[in-house]
Amino acid sequence: MGEQPKRDLEELVGAGHVLVTPGERLARASGLSYLDLVRRRGFGDFPVPDAVVLPGNPDEVQSVLEICARHDVGVVPFGGGTSVVGGVAALRGDKSAVIALDLTRLGELVSVDPVSRIAVLQAGVTGPEADRLLAGHGFTLGHVPQSYERATIGGFAATRSAGQASSGYGRFEDMVKGVRLATPRGEWKLGVAPASAAGPDLRHLAVGSEGALGVITEVALRVRPVPEVRRYEGYVLDGWENGTAAIRELAQRHVLADVTRLSDVDESEVSLALNDNWKTKALRRYLKARGVQAPCLLIVGWEGASKHEVSRRRKETTRVLEPYGAVRIGAALGESWRRGRFSGPRQRDALMDNGVCVETLETAAYWAELSDLRDAVRAALTATLGRAVIMCHVSHAYETGASLYFTVLTARDEADPIGQWQRAKAAASEAITGIGTISHHHAIGADHARYLPSEIGEIGVEVLRAAKKVVDPAGILNPGKLL
Amino acid sequence: MGEQPKRDLEELVGAGHVLVTPGERLARASGLSYLDLVRRRGFGDFPVPDAVVLPGNPDEVQSVLEICARHDVGVVPFGGGTSVVGGVAALRGDKSAVIALDLTRLGELVSVDPVSRIAVLQAGVTGPEADRLLAGHGFTLGHVPQSYERATIGGFAATRSAGQASSGYGRFEDMVKGVRLATPRGEWKLGVAPASAAGPDLRHLAVGSEGALGVITEVALRVRPVPEVRRYEGYVLDGWENGTAAIRELAQRHVLADVTRLSDVDESEVSLALNDNWKTKALRRYLKARGVQAPCLLIVGWEGASKHEVSRRRKETTRVLEPYGAVRIGAALGESWRRGRFSGPRQRDALMDNGVCVETLETAAYWAELSDLRDAVRAALTATLGRAVIMCHVSHAYETGASLYFTVLTARDEADPIGQWQRAKAAASEAITGIGTISHHHAIGADHARYLPSEIGEIGVEVLRAAKKVVDPAGILNPGKLL
Repeated sequence: MGEQPKRDLEELVGAGHVLVTPGERLARASGLSYLDLVRRRGFGDFPVPDAVVLPGNPDEVQSVLEICARHDVGVVPFGGGTSVVGGVAALRGDKSAVIALDLTRLGELVSVDPVSRIAVLQAGVTGPEADRLLAGHGFTLGHVPQSYERATIGGFAATRSAGQASSGYGRFEDMVKGVRLATPRGEWKLGVAPASAAGPDLRHLAVGSEGALGVITEVALRVRPVPEVRRYEGYVLDGWENGTAAIRELAQRHVLADVTRLSDVDESEVSLALNDNWKTKALRRYLKARGVQAPCLLIVGWEGASKHEVSRRRKETTRVLEPYGAVRIGAALGESWRRGRFSGPRQRDALMDNGVCVETLETAAYWAELSDLRDAVRAALTATLGRAVIMCHVSHAYETGASLYFTVLTARDEADPIGQWQRAKAAASEAITGIGTISHHHAIGADHARYLPSEIGEIGVEVLRAAKKVVDPAGILNPGKLL
Repeated sequence: MGEQPKRDLEELVGAGHVLVTPGERLARASGLSYLDLVRRRGFGDFPVPDAVVLPGNPDEVQSVLEICARHDVGVVPFGGGTSVVGGVAALRGDKSAVIALDLTRLGELVSVDPVSRIAVLQAGVTGPEADRLLAGHGFTLGHVPQSYERATIGGFAATRSAGQASSGYGRFEDMVKGVRLATPRGEWKLGVAPASAAGPDLRHLAVGSEGALGVITEVALRVRPVPEVRRYEGYVLDGWENGTAAIRELAQRHVLADVTRLSDVDESEVSLALNDNWKTKALRRYLKARGVQAPCLLIVGWEGASKHEVSRRRKETTRVLEPYGAVRIGAALGESWRRGRFSGPRQRDALMDNGVCVETLETAAYWAELSDLRDAVRAALTATLGRAVIMCHVSHAYETGASLYFTVLTARDEADPIGQWQRAKAAASEAITGIGTISHHHAIGADHARYLPSEIGEIGVEVLRAAKKVVDPAGILNPGKLL
């Protein structure tokens, strides 16, 4: 990066908030995909930003963009750095330099409207910090993706995040009532009412814009009271088709639990094997005695204002589950899932240390195509990877369809670990295209950009490019992402 | 319109489907706003399309647009013609000619997926016809705006319509899973999954695009089973603030009835006065005895699969209403409202015959601002109209806010009936701007276009213009609407 933009940025945010040491730059150079981690383990190269800039408030973000536009410097918005699709890769496109715009200093709860149940949070607030700040007012977001501990409000909004309790609390986009964006063209605010017929809802253009159409600096979010009562339970359903049919009926009858997560047989087997103690042995015997052939674990969790409410909702859920032969296996499994639900990334590190290629990918489709989609992705992965453990679960159900979340484990090809996964991922993505969406909650980033035309059409891509041209004429915003 | 485009269009859709008689053209020249009706009664001028073109299928719509783009002819998509914001006015902008693109021949139920509960309907299907077609498969849309009898699927989607049961069935945009649009740039299809993180959700750009970004030819809609049981009831709540607080708690506890409609004191008084019989006299005495000072009528309606379900939901609703002192006044009022709910437009005709200026306008805001918004609109209307009856109700409640629907009656200024309402409407719109949205479910059309920048920002307007430029480079689509 040239001296002039650096000086301008230092003058704006203070010299202590423009970081150029290798350590600081490396720390904001990529996200947390398997390939990111493989590259960080020395298996390949990855671009590093020329500087890390930490603005202190939305106005400073706006000014940073103006400086960068003037000097033709690319800007990669950086929150928790938990993207698994290359969303924070320090790509510079045709720019002479690129900065990581670290938003973690935007850490304030700006306002709470307890009547309308809306809180305005700054973009750099992490999941736990958001809930801590809101708890002071009796509220929570209820947004608990696996990235919860590190990811930020801005990142949740920019990527259309969905959390583990989104069946109850909604996807992040359902919570977003207003957005404040900094763009090279000027500040842009959206969201004047809970719902509107004033033309297209441009909140849905800002949400999911992945830093390419502006930097989200503040988000007005629908909040809910901190639940007084939580209840998590495990069930077993016999067979994937039977299990998804049950989830579908729950969704279509509007009696989904807040957390609803159904594992396929492979994932259930691994879960049981990983907890191979007297309890799971007893469980296996119990299921065998009940004639369960293909156990699919179901985690359901309700959160509510009172025991009465939770128990009423639980009754509605279980009434639907019963005819599907759901076997209740008690609260222990549900609670143990709840306790361990953010530990996936740490388990992955341990597996990678032991020569395992381990990654997740996800999609969603309408109910009628859901099993075809699962079969197609499994076949594509098996065809490219050979022997592999492929696990799948439904974690988000809707009236019209559901998500599928795959976890893949195979022996790492030490000669070409990057090519190994790229080929498998490409095959899975090709299989997904035409049946479901290329991403249910991980976003497009750099990794999925080539599949966007099949998702929204060439016209859709052109429309997004035209929108970008309006807000970002110099093309400095997150080069190489989304589009 | 020139001879060549006419010949091209006749060749495409058949001579019988290009109508040029004054009667046919006049019938598609405007919508159903008060000003539309006043103008039709000879109080002013309005533009008339040069021809009416009736394509028979989505491909023909696509070809019509290509012909019109070639010959620089404006295209006004026309469904039921029920716009009350000038959405179907035959404005030609800078075009040499303009046609009304009548979509009523696109009347098919294309497909039903009973598993995913998705039906694809063509744009020209009316509300009752949609429900009739779907009933053959056991489904309904549950979308019942006041325009239900005439308005079409394409119009519902293009204007982000909301129906009287949208508290239960959702706004029309919540039902839209996929959209097929014809644009001069080519056909554009959106919607591959129930939810997605593949960048901005462009379905929300198509929904609400009001014919300016394409002609919606087919819509994939989430459908629900035809309810087996319906129960509608009336309650009275004492005072507007008390009433809206009750509705707010219902929404925030997620126990709203499918239909939830609270009238303010003025609207309630008129309702009672219009039904001035022994029953309402008895009701007034009953309310007086209960100490009700400022009666606000509340209509609640539940629809469900069984008596059990409806009664369970009713219990949840009434448990919340009780502490607000809600007085149950029986099923008769609820049922009578349900029977009469599409009759508003006919009553309006009768009032207009008697020299009354009568119009509705609507908005929405977050709960904390809702009463301020009502006061501001009332004050603006009173300041411009002088003596007027101003009635208001909440018909759509959300966790974070609600809609307000105003009905205004005053003596028509026979010297300047158009100016009279334009001044009142402008004052009301100015009052709305900055507190709520300029439209909760009527759309932008031509009438609200000037308020769009205050809603989505100048940047938002530029983004929409840029999107339009992509899909409609010649600017033939619905000139003068939305933008």
